[in-house]
Amino acid sequence: MSHMNASIGKSAGTWVLTAQCPSRLGTVDVVTRFLKESRCYITEQQSFDDRLSERFFIRTEFRPMDAEFDAGAFQADFAARAGEFDMAFELTAPDARLPVVIMVSKADHCLNDLLYRYRTGQLSIDIRAVVSNHPDLEPLAAWHDLPYYHFPITPETKAEQEAQVWQVVQDTGAELVILARYMQVLSSEMCEKLSGRAINIHHSLLPGFKGAKPYHQAYEKGVKLVGATAHYINDDLDEGPIITQGVDPVSHADYPEDLVAKGRDVECLTLARAVAYHVERRVFLHKRRTVVFTR
Amino acid sequence: MSHMNASIGKSAGTWVLTAQCPSRLGTVDVVTRFLKESRCYITEQQSFDDRLSERFFIRTEFRPMDAEFDAGAFQADFAARAGEFDMAFELTAPDARLPVVIMVSKADHCLNDLLYRYRTGQLSIDIRAVVSNHPDLEPLAAWHDLPYYHFPITPETKAEQEAQVWQVVQDTGAELVILARYMQVLSSEMCEKLSGRAINIHHSLLPGFKGAKPYHQAYEKGVKLVGATAHYINDDLDEGPIITQGVDPVSHADYPEDLVAKGRDVECLTLARAVAYHVERRVFLHKRRTVVFTR
Amino acid sequence: MSHMNASIGKSAGTWVLTAQCPSRLGTVDVVTRFLKESRCYITEQQSFDDRLSERFFIRTEFRPMDAEFDAGAFQADFAARAGEFDMAFELTAPDARLPVVIMVSKADHCLNDLLYRYRTGQLSIDIRAVVSNHPDLEPLAAWHDLPYYHFPITPETKAEQEAQVWQVVQDTGAELVILARYMQVLSSEMCEKLSGRAINIHHSLLPGFKGAKPYHQAYEKGVKLVGATAHYINDDLDEGPIITQGVDPVSHADYPEDLVAKGRDVECLTLARAVAYHVERRVFLHKRRTVVFTR
Amino acid sequence: MSHMNASIGKSAGTWVLTAQCPSRLGTVDVVTRFLKESRCYITEQQSFDDRLSERFFIRTEFRPMDAEFDAGAFQADFAARAGEFDMAFELTAPDARLPVVIMVSKADHCLNDLLYRYRTGQLSIDIRAVVSNHPDLEPLAAWHDLPYYHFPITPETKAEQEAQVWQVVQDTGAELVILARYMQVLSSEMCEKLSGRAINIHHSLLPGFKGAKPYHQAYEKGVKLVGATAHYINDDLDEGPIITQGVDPVSHADYPEDLVAKGRDVECLTLARAVAYHVERRVFLHKRRTVVFTR
Repeated sequence: MSHMNASIGKSAGTWVLTAQCPSRLGTVDVVTRFLKESRCYITEQQSFDDRLSERFFIRTEFRPMDAEFDAGAFQADFAARAGEFDMAFELTAPDARLPVVIMVSKADHCLNDLLYRYRTGQLSIDIRAVVSNHPDLEPLAAWHDLPYYHFPITPETKAEQEAQVWQVVQDTGAELVILARYMQVLSSEMCEKLSGRAINIHHSLLPGFKGAKPYHQAYEKGVKLVGATAHYINDDLDEGPIITQGVDPVSHADYPEDLVAKGRDVECLTLARAVAYHVERRVFLHKRRTVVFTR
Repeated sequence: MSHMNASIGKSAGTWVLTAQCPSRLGTVDVVTRFLKESRCYITEQQSFDDRLSERFFIRTEFRPMDAEFDAGAFQADFAARAGEFDMAFELTAPDARLPVVIMVSKADHCLNDLLYRYRTGQLSIDIRAVVSNHPDLEPLAAWHDLPYYHFPITPETKAEQEAQVWQVVQDTGAELVILARYMQVLSSEMCEKLSGRAINIHHSLLPGFKGAKPYHQAYEKGVKLVGATAHYINDDLDEGPIITQGVDPVSHADYPEDLVAKGRDVECLTLARAVAYHVERRVFLHKRRTVVFTR
Repeated sequence: MSHMNASIGKSAGTWVLTAQCPSRLGTVDVVTRFLKESRCYITEQQSFDDRLSERFFIRTEFRPMDAEFDAGAFQADFAARAGEFDMAFELTAPDARLPVVIMVSKADHCLNDLLYRYRTGQLSIDIRAVVSNHPDLEPLAAWHDLPYYHFPITPETKAEQEAQVWQVVQDTGAELVILARYMQVLSSEMCEKLSGRAINIHHSLLPGFKGAKPYHQAYEKGVKLVGATAHYINDDLDEGPIITQGVDPVSHADYPEDLVAKGRDVECLTLARAVAYHVERRVFLHKRRTVVFTR
Repeated sequence: MSHMNASIGKSAGTWVLTAQCPSRLGTVDVVTRFLKESRCYITEQQSFDDRLSERFFIRTEFRPMDAEFDAGAFQADFAARAGEFDMAFELTAPDARLPVVIMVSKADHCLNDLLYRYRTGQLSIDIRAVVSNHPDLEPLAAWHDLPYYHFPITPETKAEQEAQVWQVVQDTGAELVILARYMQVLSSEMCEKLSGRAINIHHSLLPGFKGAKPYHQAYEKGVKLVGATAHYINDDLDEGPIITQGVDPVSHADYPEDLVAKGRDVECLTLARAVAYHVERRVFLHKRRTVVFTR
């Protein structure tokens, strides 16, 4: 068992068990009792029961007490108990690195930030490819030894281009797609295929300024704060379940182009945090909302 | 000359000269040259020229070098020069306390906060009356020795009630009306009368959640930040020029009633800051936007 | 069973069980299994195992499934199991309001803030008395119908004065003492008596500016942020275990008196948050550090 | 005249005039009258008079009205007037890019961040060299086509190594040295030579945790906020005049290595902001404090 996990927010060497199910007496107990019986020591645990949707969520970090830990047997054994609660669960190994595809257009600030965190081991991800509708960011990908796919897009070729993107996602085994300022609206079919595993960064505090040129909209309104929203995509554009949001103060002296420039830092941080939470299995998606167990 | 000004953000004993006019060479010079010739020492100054609206704004704090300072003569003399620039200006004395009427409904957190800052001299205001459509907050006003006017309102009596409110504003000589969670929509006529001198606190980050129950809207959207917006009222409901905005982080575990509760602190601070900026003549209104010279 | 708990951050009608003990396999299980067997539904739970101090901490909010819930029997039964783990635990009722004594000197901002939250039910506390070495704040206490004890202090009468304070704490049954800018250093004996149940607000980001006049120290150093620290008192002055910290930006234009004024808001919020966390049993004290289960 | 200035916070195409001198009537007037007479339009201006040190500071952005603007003549003419006030001033061209040397050790997060902002034109700097006591970060510099000097250091070779560094500073004409986590204490001589033109990032909220391993110190104290301080170096280690400070919340669950990791983002942002302010001539150094005209 490797201990290379340099991710912030999760202790090195710990497994993560996450689960959700309908609310019912015993939901915590079924998890924690099994862990104890499996001689697994719980280092951190958070659970939440949403009384409005009557849904239960739990995230547990644990360390097996014994040298050998059979993950397959653990999952098989736990599945039987979880089934009684209609509980969906996932077990994540300490050294797991989520396979990821990043999609970009021309703006490189979010990509640059993600690549830095990836290169320095701050994000437990395994970037399999960078995909773009423009060729501009290939050198940046190349410096990180990452394959770069340039798939131009026009209104006429949208379906075809998405098929190319989807092929890369499948070929690389990507479990997460990060839209790091991709600037293209995905089709409903693509949104459906990527449901729950594609994170977008929108450069406003949704639902404040949906659609195009949010910073120009913000300038017109004379706002004193600009922000960014990281969310799962769904087929309702700019309305997917929110994971993280960030803000930065601005003033009358900031023209639209200044807002664009000032917004970059908060976009980078907001997206990076959302990806980290997703990778560390801190985010639970249920209908149109998320549960996020931060520290 | 009194030196009782305990307001944060303005040096004790300094006068404030503010002005705005169309952009033109010499706008700063006409102000600063006059001050020098009047033997007034500038302690702080900020100016901004908005290149999109081609409008100039300046705020100057100064201290007369000589013991006697004739404010009337100063204004008369400066008016001649300012006229050449179509410059509107205002001179504010060190001990000026802006006459204020506060309007409330039932929620008392913003009122309580304003009264505390008033009582302790943090805000250079002179509260002349508290006006409400409910009787609930009278004891709070009474404890601060403030007159309280209870003017109930119904759809049928709205015009009449607003006339009562307007009468109080006129009788008290109020130069600023603070809507401290008043919860009633003012008529277009009332908005017109109070244009540029009525500040409202809206419990969301406008324009995100306009209208009623913004915290419930925010919950539905699963936002991770709630906020508040202080703005001048105008006849476009919840769309007046923004002065200040504030935010607070929230989580999945915050139900609508928790958002309401959590939002109180940020509402109080956001409103108090807007009032302080207005009182210290840091806010300039031009069309649908403000210029705010913060420190 | 009453449901009057208006505190933010804890669901209405839920009990809270908190516990800590040395790290050992089964610490979570002993809690959650018992709750399930007692037919108690867990609505929120957080646990943390500190691998450096090898100490386990858990906080559980739960709702009994059955109408009648015998708290006494619950505690007696659980005590047997907890004993096997050397586990200290506490059960808190939904309608519990912690008996509190507040200590002040002349500055009233923190007191005013706490009284407002108390009066509006935002803090589940029962203020039994306000104690001061000055008479100034009696009217404020009186308006809230609270007994006010004025115990002047001089170097010669310090021991005697502290005995008076201690008498009030005992007579009122206070379980928490809040030093809301009390400005007096407590003796080691007093600190010992109040260990773990007295919260102080220090007007700096400890350990940055210990001792007197921290804002003046901050001005001298030209800091760009001022802050406040709420901490449990101990006999090492200004070094007690930290619960919460807050900051506010400042600039070169803020003279020491401006820092004092600007700091008030952050002091109020930082102290109020610490008290809320303590009251909601989110804070665990272990040696010189705290574990704080925030939302 | 080029207009390539992509720096945030300064309007494209504007010159900057900064000045400081002892407080005296007419300090603003001498600047603004000259600008008007030179047919220069002021787009933004800020001035501050420090009443404790009796020192005046002013920063003016302006745009010449006429096509040809003779900077040399402007400076010569203004020098005569400034001399009467003992006023030190500096004129900065719209397309000025400050020559910079960056010093690093092994940690690359601040360097990576600065290089990204440099490459994308967010910082108006001209990086002439990267200097390090370790070879590790050469590839990063190389990718940005920057010369990299590896000057190892030992206690015995410190003087010699500093001479090498100084030679690079002189040869490259660097006007600013950025210590981007350089981790070596500079000698008093070196501090003297670089006085007012070397910015260091210290990974704590000074003066909170001076010296080595501030995050470990912070963990020991159980702080709930970590921070970073960017400051001019002087020969009093970790005590130079502060330019910017930033914070991030942390919790009991953050072990020292987590604090190190969490602190990286705030270090990058705090340093980048300080460099931007310096480059945009927003920072004035006077004795042990700075005046920073932010927007």
